[in-house]
Amino acid sequence: MKAQIITIGDEILIGQIIDTNSAWLATELNVLGISVDSIFSISDTSEAIQGALNDVPKDVSLVLMTGGLGPTKDDITKYTLAQWFDSEWRVDEKVEQRVKDHFALRAIPMPKVNLDQARVPEKCQVLANMLGTAPGMWFEKEGRIYISMPGVPFEMKHIFSEQAIPKIRTKFKLQNIVHKTILTQGIGESSLMEKITDWEASLVEKNIKLAYLPSPGAVRLRLSSTSDFAKENMQGISDKVNELLPLISDHAFGFERDTLELVVGRLLTKFGYSLSVAESCTGGYISHLITSVPGSSIYFMGSATTYSYEAKTRVLGVNKADLEQVGAVSEIVAMQMAQGVRELYKTDFAVASTGIAGPDGGTPDKPVGTVWIGVSGPLGTYAQRFYMGDKRDRNIRKTALQALQLLRKEIVKTVKISEIDSLFIKE
Amino acid sequence: MKAQIITIGDEILIGQIIDTNSAWLATELNVLGISVDSIFSISDTSEAIQGALNDVPKDVSLVLMTGGLGPTKDDITKYTLAQWFDSEWRVDEKVEQRVKDHFALRAIPMPKVNLDQARVPEKCQVLANMLGTAPGMWFEKEGRIYISMPGVPFEMKHIFSEQAIPKIRTKFKLQNIVHKTILTQGIGESSLMEKITDWEASLVEKNIKLAYLPSPGAVRLRLSSTSDFAKENMQGISDKVNELLPLISDHAFGFERDTLELVVGRLLTKFGYSLSVAESCTGGYISHLITSVPGSSIYFMGSATTYSYEAKTRVLGVNKADLEQVGAVSEIVAMQMAQGVRELYKTDFAVASTGIAGPDGGTPDKPVGTVWIGVSGPLGTYAQRFYMGDKRDRNIRKTALQALQLLRKEIVKTVKISEIDSLFIKE
Repeated sequence: MKAQIITIGDEILIGQIIDTNSAWLATELNVLGISVDSIFSISDTSEAIQGALNDVPKDVSLVLMTGGLGPTKDDITKYTLAQWFDSEWRVDEKVEQRVKDHFALRAIPMPKVNLDQARVPEKCQVLANMLGTAPGMWFEKEGRIYISMPGVPFEMKHIFSEQAIPKIRTKFKLQNIVHKTILTQGIGESSLMEKITDWEASLVEKNIKLAYLPSPGAVRLRLSSTSDFAKENMQGISDKVNELLPLISDHAFGFERDTLELVVGRLLTKFGYSLSVAESCTGGYISHLITSVPGSSIYFMGSATTYSYEAKTRVLGVNKADLEQVGAVSEIVAMQMAQGVRELYKTDFAVASTGIAGPDGGTPDKPVGTVWIGVSGPLGTYAQRFYMGDKRDRNIRKTALQALQLLRKEIVKTVKISEIDSLFIKE
Repeated sequence: MKAQIITIGDEILIGQIIDTNSAWLATELNVLGISVDSIFSISDTSEAIQGALNDVPKDVSLVLMTGGLGPTKDDITKYTLAQWFDSEWRVDEKVEQRVKDHFALRAIPMPKVNLDQARVPEKCQVLANMLGTAPGMWFEKEGRIYISMPGVPFEMKHIFSEQAIPKIRTKFKLQNIVHKTILTQGIGESSLMEKITDWEASLVEKNIKLAYLPSPGAVRLRLSSTSDFAKENMQGISDKVNELLPLISDHAFGFERDTLELVVGRLLTKFGYSLSVAESCTGGYISHLITSVPGSSIYFMGSATTYSYEAKTRVLGVNKADLEQVGAVSEIVAMQMAQGVRELYKTDFAVASTGIAGPDGGTPDKPVGTVWIGVSGPLGTYAQRFYMGDKRDRNIRKTALQALQLLRKEIVKTVKISEIDSLFIKE
């Protein structure tokens, strides 16, 4: 089964916004077992919208439209759709009530244009928008489904997940597709591929597909299985995941939508440990990741970013002679930074980064991208060296993920559970 | 003049990557005065590529294709193009040499597939790729130009800027379009609109267009003027910018591709000042922004993220009694944090954030989004309160930008130049 995504709005065509809605919808459709034929971004005009609707490829059964449903006169999608589907109008009372409630709740006077949002084409079924005022709309014509949703990402996602997917499931006999995603860090796509060649070859007989989804510093492995027996599928995938994990236990850190900062936070919370961070080359990015997690104030005490020798010495107690002898980017300094910040904030664990982020500052024996990461905890303190490449932003990102990974492993070691068991710890 | 952008590759259709190339190209095309008719993302198959080429709208004179030019067999764009343009093949010696050099430089053995990249359709003109091995290609057919470029963003951007734009300029008589973008922070689109209504109305007679380009915490104002006299245009825009700046001097911080962290860094470097940062609710994000600028180690000494009362007291010397009496989210604590970190790192300036990032932790008199920002410098120390809304990630981003803006103003005040003059300081 095939779908087409149509995004409507000049803001995409002038490069003002990046179309993230399409990638989100494409992911959701793929999870449902619906493949995306194409994504079409068009102008907010009646001609462009009609043109796109006339040109939908023949074998597409589902058309998802986003954008062009706001209250201002520029948003003409709804009127074009009424015309294209040759539909009269009606006022939807539920939508009307929701629009009124929306403004009442916020104690804002309601502009008249917003009431027009309750006027919908008679031929559509309304997909309720609980997070905004523009309703989603579901049309059917000649066996094909057309869904129109507002462009505001959180409203669109809500309507699609809560309203559209259940209706799509009743309308189409979708294949039973089951997914499982395993998250890895610190290993490139091709090295990962080599490591699991034999295992990957064994997936065929179980009718399981594997996709490598790389991003800087991390690769996701997505297993999918399609059949009429959901339970069997899930069991087949679980078995294969259990075979996979020992092969990649150095790199795996979680499943599905986990992030390293979430996983680390979960472990610290569960075992009642606290954390502090000392940063040099990552410049605050590790702390930023950790504190992007709601509730991180339970375990995160604080951090120090020290960008000079003097700051490292005075704030973190790094030994001045060591700094002068071996330089800031060294094993001993990474260890002293981790120990120092751990004492400063009196925490159970600490992690530290020191390296050459670039583009300048490299030397022949310490090229740009050289990084030492220090870890300190109840079991002791150590540091490890890495090369993260010569692009400043990627370098910072990759170092931060590696630091969180080492920290995760140290916590797991400290609480004496196995690497693999640790992956299954829930919130 | 109209263009269409075609992005080729299944990775977009499965939602694996977000198509940022199109937004970048759309921006560049708009700057050239070329409007984008539509953006079409299609599969990496011969049928899909041919289908898209057959369906290019009649009034489009320029087709930009990205993706599908890598060395593996999946990348069939080049073969499809040769077929569609009814072209024989030739080996391009310059491309061949560049591919060989690419691998020699990196001391990596060259896979045979890469040499195939030197085979190009005879009917194309090669657009040199100095950053990778896949060449760009320029085709002409029935008065329309087709440009095919690799999908790797930095290679694509390089080829488009260095090779394609100069050729496009010689081929088409583009209107002389001149742009100037003014960057503002801390004021919403509609408030900004109200502030400059009269000025905006005066643009019509000068034939200048205005676009509001909003993002969380910042709005860009883009002025464009199209005519046959570039010099006159530029003068007209400059005059209008000079009229605008006094109206928005509380919010303007730079032009074009400036960022607040770049502007602050430029001021600190020029006047020889140093900086430190104390963070609570922003959790390291201010430091991350500052250190994302290459060369920031010249002026940035360090930061402390303090997430608990104890850390604020011990590391930054915040008064314990004040914390207990008025709480961490208060004027006095923001000031003490700024002073404390300034003393800790012995810097000329310091900025501090303390607030409730959410989603939890709000109280009736201090709801989620309440933030105090403290600034300390040679002229003294003060703090100011803001409300940043209830979304954690936006809240952190908006607070960081506001902190950098207050810091920028404090530096400008200290060096005794006018707000408006400060905007024109160059690196």
